[in-house]
Amino acid sequence: MTAPLTPSRPIDGGSESELPAVRLMPKANARAIRHGFPWVYANELVTDRRTRKLTPGALALLEDAERQPMGLVSVNTNSKIIARMLDRDPAAVIDQAWFERHIRRALRLRERLYDAPFYRLVHAEADGLPGVVIDRFDDTCVVQPNAAWAEALIEPLCAALVAVTGATNVLKNAGGRTRALEGLDDVNAVLAGAAPEKPVPVRMNGATYLADVTGGQKTGIFYDQRPNHAFAANLSRGARVLDVFAHVGGFSLAALASGASSALAVDGSGPALELAQGGAEAAGVADRFATRQGDAFDVLAALRAEGAEFDVVICDPPAFAPARPALEAGLRAYERVARLAAPLVAEGGILGLCSCSHAADLAQFRVASVRGIGRAGRHGVLLHTGFAGADHPQLPQLAESGYLKSLFFRL
Amino acid sequence: MTAPLTPSRPIDGGSESELPAVRLMPKANARAIRHGFPWVYANELVTDRRTRKLTPGALALLEDAERQPMGLVSVNTNSKIIARMLDRDPAAVIDQAWFERHIRRALRLRERLYDAPFYRLVHAEADGLPGVVIDRFDDTCVVQPNAAWAEALIEPLCAALVAVTGATNVLKNAGGRTRALEGLDDVNAVLAGAAPEKPVPVRMNGATYLADVTGGQKTGIFYDQRPNHAFAANLSRGARVLDVFAHVGGFSLAALASGASSALAVDGSGPALELAQGGAEAAGVADRFATRQGDAFDVLAALRAEGAEFDVVICDPPAFAPARPALEAGLRAYERVARLAAPLVAEGGILGLCSCSHAADLAQFRVASVRGIGRAGRHGVLLHTGFAGADHPQLPQLAESGYLKSLFFRL
Repeated sequence: MTAPLTPSRPIDGGSESELPAVRLMPKANARAIRHGFPWVYANELVTDRRTRKLTPGALALLEDAERQPMGLVSVNTNSKIIARMLDRDPAAVIDQAWFERHIRRALRLRERLYDAPFYRLVHAEADGLPGVVIDRFDDTCVVQPNAAWAEALIEPLCAALVAVTGATNVLKNAGGRTRALEGLDDVNAVLAGAAPEKPVPVRMNGATYLADVTGGQKTGIFYDQRPNHAFAANLSRGARVLDVFAHVGGFSLAALASGASSALAVDGSGPALELAQGGAEAAGVADRFATRQGDAFDVLAALRAEGAEFDVVICDPPAFAPARPALEAGLRAYERVARLAAPLVAEGGILGLCSCSHAADLAQFRVASVRGIGRAGRHGVLLHTGFAGADHPQLPQLAESGYLKSLFFRL
Repeated sequence: MTAPLTPSRPIDGGSESELPAVRLMPKANARAIRHGFPWVYANELVTDRRTRKLTPGALALLEDAERQPMGLVSVNTNSKIIARMLDRDPAAVIDQAWFERHIRRALRLRERLYDAPFYRLVHAEADGLPGVVIDRFDDTCVVQPNAAWAEALIEPLCAALVAVTGATNVLKNAGGRTRALEGLDDVNAVLAGAAPEKPVPVRMNGATYLADVTGGQKTGIFYDQRPNHAFAANLSRGARVLDVFAHVGGFSLAALASGASSALAVDGSGPALELAQGGAEAAGVADRFATRQGDAFDVLAALRAEGAEFDVVICDPPAFAPARPALEAGLRAYERVARLAAPLVAEGGILGLCSCSHAADLAQFRVASVRGIGRAGRHGVLLHTGFAGADHPQLPQLAESGYLKSLFFRL
C-alpha cells in the first residue's frame, strides 16, 4: 500500500494520482476485462521490476496495453490471479465508506431474500469485494479475507461491516483453501467483539442448526445448500431420510422440520454430529433423529448389509474434485457414492447427489451419478437440478465455475 | 397394431409371441439403449419391407443386431424417432392395467410434491409414456398424445387415467408441435366427460390463475415455470413488477400474491390478458394489477420512452429457437429482449430472463442475455438459474435437451 499524501486522504486506500500503474500485455484479453471479467492472470500483465516489488495486495491503476486506464486493481505477484478489479473508476478511494457502500448493497439483497439475518452476506467478486466472503449469523459475522488486498485492508472492512450490519462480533476465518495461493497465513482472529462461547443457533427452512463459527468446517454452516435442503425437505413428508456426509445435519434437520418420519445423519466427524444432535433437540425433533459416526463409504456398505431402506437418501460429500488434477479420481468417487447409495433407496424413492467440486462440471457430475446408479442396477429420472442459493451470486463471466450442483433423482 | 389371438388377450396391446420383430443395425448404439436411452433413430433400424409396412404406432419387439430381444417398442416409420421403448420387458402387455401402473407411479410423485391437484401428471419418456403429456387441473385432465402409439392406444390410456385419478373430464389436445413429425392430425377431442365451459381456476404459489384448457396455448397454463414464479415472487415483496410475455399472468399474479406493490402484465394476446385480469380479480389483487396488450418489443420500447421503472422485470418469451435452424436468430432475439428490458430495471433491481428453446442451451442463452444487458449499459450478477419444475422429470439421457431455463440477474 502507498502512504497517504494528505491528511484528508484515508490511510487505507489510494487515489489515482498516487498509485503505481500496472499494464496489460498486448495479448491480454482487455475486452473481456472491460466487459466485466474481474481478473488479470499473471501471464497477461507486464511484470517489470517495479511491479514485482509491489507488496502483495497493493492497490494499483490498471492500464491497457495502450496505457488507457481501466480501473483500480489490487496486485499480488505471488498469485496466478495477479490483479483483481476493485473499482472501474480509477479515481476510487478504497476506504471504509467504499466498503460500506458494497456491504450495504449486498445487505439489501439478502434482506429481500430472507426473513432472518442468517445468510452469506458477501460472496466475493459478485458482491464487489474480490476474494472476500462474509457469512452472517445474526449479530456475529465471519469474514474470510481470501485475497491479499482484503487481508491488508481488514480494518476498514471490519469497521464498515459493523457500521452497516450492527454486528457485535466479527471473526476472521483464515481457513480458506485459496489463502495459500495468495501467500496468506491460516491464523484465525477476533476482529471485533468476542468469539461466541457456544454454538450459534441458525434458523433455516424451518429447522434449527447449531453452527460452530470458530472451529467448524468453512464458517460453521453451509448456507449455499439452503434451496436444495428445501427441495429435499418438501419431498420428505412422512419419509425415512438418510443424510450422508451430514455435517451439522443440513438435509436431515430440514426434512424433520417438514415432517419426515425419521432421519439418520452419517458423518465422519463426531463434533459435527454432536451439533446435529443439538440442533435436533433445539427444534424438538430429536425423537425422530439418529446419528451414526463413521466413514461414509463404510456406513453405506454396512447399511446395505443390514438391509436398510429409505425413502429419501441425500449424499453431500466434500469436494472430491476441487481442482483439475483431481478430476478423474473425483468423478470416480462421485460414481461410487451413487453406486453405494442407490441400493438403499426404496422403489419410487428419491436420491439426492451433491457436488461442490469446481473442477467437475454439471454434465460430468451428472454422467458419473447416472453411471453409479446404473451400476447399482437401478434407473433414475432427474427431478431437479439445484445450485447454490441466491445469497451466493455469481459474476456471469465466472458462472461456468459455479461449484455447487445438486441432482435429485427418482429411482 | 396386431389383432388379439385369444379372448383373454386385450385388444389394445400385444405380447412377445404375436408381435413383429424389428432389428437394430450393427452401427446402432445398442449400449446406450440398454442403459436407458429411449429412442431408436431411423438410421439405426433395419427397415425391410415388413417394417415399412407397419402401421404408425404399431408395437414391435426390438432386437439388437445379434437378434437378442431388447424390449417392447412402438414403431413409426414416418418419424425420425423410428422406435420408442415402451417396456424393457419384451413380454409386456400394453393394456389399461399397464397404463394404470405408469399413471399411478407418476401420481405418487406429484402428490408428494404438491398439496393441490394442479400439475403436469405425466411428462412423457421420464414417466414411462413416451411422447405423452398429461396436465391435470383438478378433475379435468388434458392429454397430449404426441406420438403415434399413444394416439392408437388413446382409449385404454384414457380409461386408465380416469381409473387412477378419478378425473371427470379428459380432453385431447392435438396442438403439440411434434405431432406433425409423427404424421398425426391436429384435431382436439373430448375423450371423457365434457370440456369445461368456463376457464378453470388453478391455485399455484398462492396465486389464482384462470386456465382455458380448451383454447389456450399449450394446455392452458405453464406448470413448468412454477418454481421460477416462486423464486421471483419471493423477491417481489413491496416491488413494482413488470411481467413481459405474461400469458395468463404467471409471474405477475404470483408476485402480487407475495406482496408486490404493483404488477403490469404485457402480452400480445387479448384473451390471455383477460384471463390474467380474471385471475387477479379472483385472488383479490386486481387493484394492484394492470395489463397492456401489444407486441412485447414495442411495449418495452414504449415503457422506456415513458421513463417507466420497475424493481422486478421478468421476460418469458415463446421459444425463439425451437429448433437448430432458428438458433442464431433466436439468440439474437433473446439478446434483444435483455437489451430492451434492462433499462427498465431500477438500480439494484432484478431482471429475470427465460428461454423455453430446445436449441439454445444454458450457456448460449446466458451469453445472449449477458450481452443484451451489457448493450443496455448495465451490469448484472447472476442470482439464480432455474429449470422446469419437478413435475417435469427428465430421463438423464435426455437431460441436455432440458428446454426451460430461467436466469435471474441483479442489476
